[in-house]
Amino acid sequence: MSITKMTDVYPTRTGTEVKIIQRQDPVVYGKDKKGPLSVEQLDFFEKNGYLFLENYFTPQEVEELQQEMNRMLEANRGSSASEVILEPDGDDVRSIFAVHQSSSVFEALYKKPKLNEAARQILGSEVYIHQSRINFKPGFAGKEFYWHSDFETWHAEDGMPRMRAFSCSIALTDNYPFNGPLMVMPGSHQKFVSCIGETPDDHYKHSLRKQEYGVPDHDSLTMLAEQYGIETPVGKAGSILLFDCNIMHGSNSNISPYPRSNIFMVFNSVENKLTDPFAAAKPRPEFIAHRS
Amino acid sequence: MSITKMTDVYPTRTGTEVKIIQRQDPVVYGKDKKGPLSVEQLDFFEKNGYLFLENYFTPQEVEELQQEMNRMLEANRGSSASEVILEPDGDDVRSIFAVHQSSSVFEALYKKPKLNEAARQILGSEVYIHQSRINFKPGFAGKEFYWHSDFETWHAEDGMPRMRAFSCSIALTDNYPFNGPLMVMPGSHQKFVSCIGETPDDHYKHSLRKQEYGVPDHDSLTMLAEQYGIETPVGKAGSILLFDCNIMHGSNSNISPYPRSNIFMVFNSVENKLTDPFAAAKPRPEFIAHRS
Repeated sequence: MSITKMTDVYPTRTGTEVKIIQRQDPVVYGKDKKGPLSVEQLDFFEKNGYLFLENYFTPQEVEELQQEMNRMLEANRGSSASEVILEPDGDDVRSIFAVHQSSSVFEALYKKPKLNEAARQILGSEVYIHQSRINFKPGFAGKEFYWHSDFETWHAEDGMPRMRAFSCSIALTDNYPFNGPLMVMPGSHQKFVSCIGETPDDHYKHSLRKQEYGVPDHDSLTMLAEQYGIETPVGKAGSILLFDCNIMHGSNSNISPYPRSNIFMVFNSVENKLTDPFAAAKPRPEFIAHRS
Repeated sequence: MSITKMTDVYPTRTGTEVKIIQRQDPVVYGKDKKGPLSVEQLDFFEKNGYLFLENYFTPQEVEELQQEMNRMLEANRGSSASEVILEPDGDDVRSIFAVHQSSSVFEALYKKPKLNEAARQILGSEVYIHQSRINFKPGFAGKEFYWHSDFETWHAEDGMPRMRAFSCSIALTDNYPFNGPLMVMPGSHQKFVSCIGETPDDHYKHSLRKQEYGVPDHDSLTMLAEQYGIETPVGKAGSILLFDCNIMHGSNSNISPYPRSNIFMVFNSVENKLTDPFAAAKPRPEFIAHRS
């Protein structure tokens, strides 16, 4: 047990009992900071746990990102690299991780002021990329991502101490209500659903294809959905969705012919650096959870 | 080969080549008939291949139907009756067939003038129930129904000669864009997508859980989606969706907590009675395809 381990205010995967814990942390840490997000937008994010912005990237920017995505998809088809995750039922590429390291285009992307300064407004400090990935969700065959809080996994398996991180999903294809868009429960970021079961060793090798631990129970999900409702913010390629690390979210399958491809970048505060995992024997590899 | 077998204007599952065939039949056969559907509604159905009507059933009617549905769900949990179809991954009930025969409530339902007379307007003749079923699509775990034309299967496996039938789906729970609603391609009922592969014996025993033959190919689906688009008509319990036997439709999975339960009733014209199957060794059982 490392000396950096602190009191765990968000215990999870510790037993057989489900517990719902009130959030102990702010949502927006840098309200007074000037940047690309308006006060109204920051207030919306604070209240709802997400913020959807249309046309955040120009058609030219989108085209460059799409080209880079397609290049990486082609280059990684059938790859056995650990950064490349395949669909549960086949060889289609589901995700590629650590793209801000393997691609200079995506490295430049997260450094753009309109993302980086927005991240500093939300997190109130310097920031770094905790995780980056492309999700392809191919047409006809894209499978669901079941409901989860990202923070639950990052806390349990990566050792992220507190809720001071968020994801930015950049749509690289048009999103429709029917091609498996992200569903969020607005306001659910205020509740932490402690999950049952213990984390098996090397859980990530399976969980990135299909998650079986850190999965909220039906009663908690029903209660959250009744209380907060479900929204599916969708828009054209170039729109972005920012969402808090603890918002309950998931997505249905995609049998439509239209792939739903996004770049995900998780910004973490430098004041919220990873410690030992809170509910796993050892931390996940660096390509899933960067430590600086 | 029976003497009733006629020239097949919609060949399917006969080889390895995909063919798209223009529809050879009318869509609305009884435009001049008076009934619950207006001329505008019949025109919409003819053009788009579907018609969605909110509040078609009163809250009292809906409540009676819901009670009957729940009674049947309870009575059939874990059942091994052939009329009861389970989800591919578990023991949850996915569908119950022939409910207009096993339930006096559902028998009375299809005889209601507001359904039966609407059916006569669309089909231009006396009608009978070709198939009836309840689809439960449970919350959290409901799986997708892949794209298909009902007529392709009814023609290949049941011996339905021509396109002179339609489905009526009555929503018994509220439908949302995110709980796996039916997706239709409006106008696609004008194209028959001939499918490849031959029908295996007793195909229905698997196909009702997960269909593998009579499945349109990706190129045809992409072409239809580009030409016709995709709509997801949704509404409260009590709404109905009428859709032509040949419209391309399907639905995504449902990880939301909200079940998507519907009663399906397929009306066929008495002038379109079943013959020998057009692409299967023997017809499917009566509970799936009634012959009168």
